[in-house]
Amino acid sequence: MKELEDRIRRDGTVKPGNVLKVDAFLNHQCDVDLFDQMGTEWARLFADRHIDKILTIEASGIGIACMAARHFGNVPVVFAKKTQSINLDGDQYVASIYSFTKQREYPVIVAKRFLHEGEHVLLIDDFLANGNALHGLIDICHHAGVVIEGIGIAIEKGFQEGGKKLREEGYDIQSLAIVDSMDAEAGTIEFTSAQ
Amino acid sequence: MKELEDRIRRDGTVKPGNVLKVDAFLNHQCDVDLFDQMGTEWARLFADRHIDKILTIEASGIGIACMAARHFGNVPVVFAKKTQSINLDGDQYVASIYSFTKQREYPVIVAKRFLHEGEHVLLIDDFLANGNALHGLIDICHHAGVVIEGIGIAIEKGFQEGGKKLREEGYDIQSLAIVDSMDAEAGTIEFTSAQ
Repeated sequence: MKELEDRIRRDGTVKPGNVLKVDAFLNHQCDVDLFDQMGTEWARLFADRHIDKILTIEASGIGIACMAARHFGNVPVVFAKKTQSINLDGDQYVASIYSFTKQREYPVIVAKRFLHEGEHVLLIDDFLANGNALHGLIDICHHAGVVIEGIGIAIEKGFQEGGKKLREEGYDIQSLAIVDSMDAEAGTIEFTSAQ
Repeated sequence: MKELEDRIRRDGTVKPGNVLKVDAFLNHQCDVDLFDQMGTEWARLFADRHIDKILTIEASGIGIACMAARHFGNVPVVFAKKTQSINLDGDQYVASIYSFTKQREYPVIVAKRFLHEGEHVLLIDDFLANGNALHGLIDICHHAGVVIEGIGIAIEKGFQEGGKKLREEGYDIQSLAIVDSMDAEAGTIEFTSAQ
């Protein structure tokens, strides 16, 4: 998606350790107009799918998932939580994932009553790198018996293995920008050409 | 706001300890159409204010803030973070707040480059009870030198002190539903009549 690639080039920053900072528009400050365009694009890419619900993960997934839901007939958005809370009771699906950015293992939790067997779910997240977070969501989907219709990603790090492995497993992943390579010293970012 | 009160009555659950669970539509599963109506209502209530930016706090504030931003001319949404991350670098505003629902103290963090002195900011959050989270955001706003034009809250617990104290401090708080009292045993929720 050209608008997203242009924005990453303009406002993204490459840091050592293959860190791509996009907090100016994606995951700290949010450009809702860009989010809306991303929703439009996912709706186009998944136009042939029936989607009952969008599942994402707090915190950065929530804004893009909510904006995207507008383009899928206002379907409910469920966001997986990363911490237990006294407000989270009842039966839960829990998966454990490791975050490189937070440098620790954490649970992802979804209340069982918000995922129903046979529902058609679209997963949405801001980043796909090694795929750990997504695998946690996928685990939960399998436990719940929902059908994963597709996976919408804002930015995929194409040079890491997550996307490749998930596509081999048969998932329909639509990443709006796929970073082919980036260089912290030169500050350059190369994208994989659009399919 | 009648739609929100009706929804709380229908899908909210009162738990012992003055806990109001609204995770079916507000802070675990999200009803984006309701969020959109809430945004419309805040835009009406703050129609005389010039808003440059919306500031909220992860995770539950993000969805409602992003949907609301659509009704304020697509202004940027900044969400305060609750955990340090290797993606959060540079100068930060940090305030410490205590969460009763999570039963621990945690930091709220906003990168300095996303709040500029003199900007007109609307604060948005899902709940106002004792006001701890909001006070953290307000602290950060004061440090940044931004002007707080108003505070939009989805659900205020009117029987707790947060809203009263903040109004006495002069803040223009617009809560879309104010719970006057609730009873876990009877499962009843009473709202303060609309102003």
